[in-house]
Amino acid sequence: MLFLKVRLLDIDLLDLVLINPEDIKASQYFPGDRVVLIYKNKEEIGTIYSSTLVNRGEIGITKELAKSLKVKEGELITIKHADKPRSLAYIKKKMDKNKLSKEEIFLIVDEMVNNKLTNIEISAFVTSLYINGMDMDEIEALTIRMAETGEMVEWESLVFDVHSIGGVPGNKYALLTVPIVASAGLKIPKTSSRAITSAAGTADVMEVLTRVDLSIEEIKNVVKETNGCLVWGGALNLAPADDITINVERPLGIDPKPLLLSSVMAKKLAMGVSKLLIDIPIGREVKVKDEKEGNKLAREFIELGERLNITTECALTYGNQPIGRAIGPALEAKEALETLEDPYKGANSLVDKATHLAGILLEMGGIAPAGEGKEVAEELLFRKAHDKFMDIIVAQGGKEVRSEEIEVGKYFIDIVSPKDGYVIELSNNKITKIAKEAGAPNDKKAGVYLNVKVGDKVEKGDLLFTIYSSSEDRLKNAIKLARTLYPIKVEGILIKRIVRF
Amino acid sequence: MLFLKVRLLDIDLLDLVLINPEDIKASQYFPGDRVVLIYKNKEEIGTIYSSTLVNRGEIGITKELAKSLKVKEGELITIKHADKPRSLAYIKKKMDKNKLSKEEIFLIVDEMVNNKLTNIEISAFVTSLYINGMDMDEIEALTIRMAETGEMVEWESLVFDVHSIGGVPGNKYALLTVPIVASAGLKIPKTSSRAITSAAGTADVMEVLTRVDLSIEEIKNVVKETNGCLVWGGALNLAPADDITINVERPLGIDPKPLLLSSVMAKKLAMGVSKLLIDIPIGREVKVKDEKEGNKLAREFIELGERLNITTECALTYGNQPIGRAIGPALEAKEALETLEDPYKGANSLVDKATHLAGILLEMGGIAPAGEGKEVAEELLFRKAHDKFMDIIVAQGGKEVRSEEIEVGKYFIDIVSPKDGYVIELSNNKITKIAKEAGAPNDKKAGVYLNVKVGDKVEKGDLLFTIYSSSEDRLKNAIKLARTLYPIKVEGILIKRIVRF
Repeated sequence: MLFLKVRLLDIDLLDLVLINPEDIKASQYFPGDRVVLIYKNKEEIGTIYSSTLVNRGEIGITKELAKSLKVKEGELITIKHADKPRSLAYIKKKMDKNKLSKEEIFLIVDEMVNNKLTNIEISAFVTSLYINGMDMDEIEALTIRMAETGEMVEWESLVFDVHSIGGVPGNKYALLTVPIVASAGLKIPKTSSRAITSAAGTADVMEVLTRVDLSIEEIKNVVKETNGCLVWGGALNLAPADDITINVERPLGIDPKPLLLSSVMAKKLAMGVSKLLIDIPIGREVKVKDEKEGNKLAREFIELGERLNITTECALTYGNQPIGRAIGPALEAKEALETLEDPYKGANSLVDKATHLAGILLEMGGIAPAGEGKEVAEELLFRKAHDKFMDIIVAQGGKEVRSEEIEVGKYFIDIVSPKDGYVIELSNNKITKIAKEAGAPNDKKAGVYLNVKVGDKVEKGDLLFTIYSSSEDRLKNAIKLARTLYPIKVEGILIKRIVRF
Repeated sequence: MLFLKVRLLDIDLLDLVLINPEDIKASQYFPGDRVVLIYKNKEEIGTIYSSTLVNRGEIGITKELAKSLKVKEGELITIKHADKPRSLAYIKKKMDKNKLSKEEIFLIVDEMVNNKLTNIEISAFVTSLYINGMDMDEIEALTIRMAETGEMVEWESLVFDVHSIGGVPGNKYALLTVPIVASAGLKIPKTSSRAITSAAGTADVMEVLTRVDLSIEEIKNVVKETNGCLVWGGALNLAPADDITINVERPLGIDPKPLLLSSVMAKKLAMGVSKLLIDIPIGREVKVKDEKEGNKLAREFIELGERLNITTECALTYGNQPIGRAIGPALEAKEALETLEDPYKGANSLVDKATHLAGILLEMGGIAPAGEGKEVAEELLFRKAHDKFMDIIVAQGGKEVRSEEIEVGKYFIDIVSPKDGYVIELSNNKITKIAKEAGAPNDKKAGVYLNVKVGDKVEKGDLLFTIYSSSEDRLKNAIKLARTLYPIKVEGILIKRIVRF
């Protein structure tokens, strides 16, 4: 036990705790030790580092930690060594290839959410799940607890949702699907994420048009008024353990099956969704590589959904090239609006995907007879979706807007074809990289607009794509990258025929 | 790319990089991003956090990072996003249960040592090794690269070493074994560690008597003069990757076999050891639980030794209770000295272990005929070891000292037996916990002195053990803990007989 006077630090490294080197020397604590900070009846966990930024007798803690402890600068707090987290034994048990009980999984999730596990321990858990997996009982427990340890939303009637796993660039279909479904009278409070590794998440795109950081109360009001919404889930504290594991999965570049399933379903469970459609894009450069794998994953989502009392259907969709032509927040918002304003002008891939998915939801909701959902969705897209989308934008705090009013980057460059031939390849990953180099998603006006898609015939000098940016420097970097990556391949007839075979 | 003016931070969190929140907002960087810091021809890796401790246009980096970059406060440095470490693909390959090539393992070790891997990635690697293991080719490559990426010591003649894996409390035998072996004319430059989870490492004990943070040059001089030394390996930059993995293994409480083997052997390879004896304690509360496991591990050490050109033998030793009677740096130093001054007074377990291990080394060095090593070692213990030990102490920078001059904690308490009976159990772990609660190893004078060992007959009120501390408060805490843990079990005759059976 050590008593120290609080000194507030403005650093966003939550668990940082600074102690003067002389105090550390005289104590039983070492830099890197995990400690419990105690103030009155509150406890928080931190990690000690030695620093002369604080004087002897002082303890430097972040403002956020001080807020959780309800302690003010200058007050005395106590620290003691943190016990090893109790759930470590169960993480070890999973390393040893054993099945975990519900209670054991609950404790792991609880300790993760309560900041009792470090990244070292969470990484060991994630790696164990990647190697040793979980059965459906374990995944069910994991999902339920991930949901329960955050906000849980309740609705008076059934709510619908649609969710895509794995990223296809330009995947702005939800801006069409949600208003179509809402205009048919079904409630669809769609939460989405910001870009993690992509050039634009649905929330980034929607933010070009209106507010997305709504509270649950605000979401309920919007849905009451319009039947739908398109908001940022990150503002809502839904299934916080999911964000914690994602922060470890991302640098490792792995997505263990149990976490892939629980991540999606915990957020839906927390959001109170009753009927869910999952879009599983299939392609060389997306999460799911082939149909067989897609079918297996779909069956698992459906089984987990049943256990959670969420009616779940899945759609395998084409993921080998971007959806539509625009990649980047403003470009995508503009494309979605254009398509809602005049669906005849929209890219086939976008209209097709949006109405297909909407159609399934309409069938799930009993609005359309089996097999006729897409047709009904198309009709709604032409007749009602645009007005419904405007209502949603206004209800979320924005203003009605026309596609031509959306500004995109004022610096741009056209990239043209070096020869005659056919577009035989369009790389999702490379297009994303170029859009990000140009500034997306932080620079909302940056991105890539594709003038061609796979299979198109082009002549030398024809426009392939345009890169946009708000910054001349970033545009230059993006051009440089585009020249190295060569994201669109054009080949002559002969090679084209071999590829076709 | 972002150019920022350096501001020095005195925090021992090596890779901390602070940027003003306004600069972060205007940049493409997010808190938590790994970045490369570039100054002239130097590069280092850091992790960005947002903080108003630095002004706009400034970048806060630790003094140590600035030293590596050779940059001074106020100078401009550049940052860019760090690429994913290349070795991540090989860590992933191990997660997928594949054998790694020599080159792949080399890259993992190199990136670990160059601070390119975070704890998240290292934990994934360690966990993968725990679950999927490595074959001897892989372990050999791991060991060689761990050694090569640090200091490599060369000697003009053969050098011997003895190393214990896994902790038995009170394991101060090296303070006897090294002078015995050195007094026989063999060179034995023993490096050891400070306590990690124990109450005293050999280096902590030796530090009570003399300097232990010698440079390699100094070690060579001491060995030239006396044939032996007992120094702290941590001062030497031997196999730095080993320390990096240990920092992850420790919180997880795992010790994957490939790392257990490479950890020991990389340090020995780096230290230039030619003939090595490995002590493998066997017991309920130590790393190796039974003889079968001990034999298997011994064979692996011997095979790895052969591949590294280090002649290796192993000794399985009794590890079910502490060695000797003293636990804690000063208490152990005192006990070792007493035993050297008059071996008749020494605890059987200590004299026996020290001479047994010394005997094997003497046989390995051709000093004693096969089967007679222990006898020769005993003779040397009586005739020469004490003087040799004094020479070593003096050569390392200390002064000759008598056991009665060693000070132990001035606060102490005797714990007595609550009843008549026999000591049927003495828990290593509990004794260690009590010694640590009393302040060991930071408080060198703190610890536990055992008055009884397993099998001893005691009467009600007889002294079981004494707890020492330099702090009255800490002694109180240790007493409280001793009352809860009940580290020594005394049972009546009846139970004793059942246990004997």
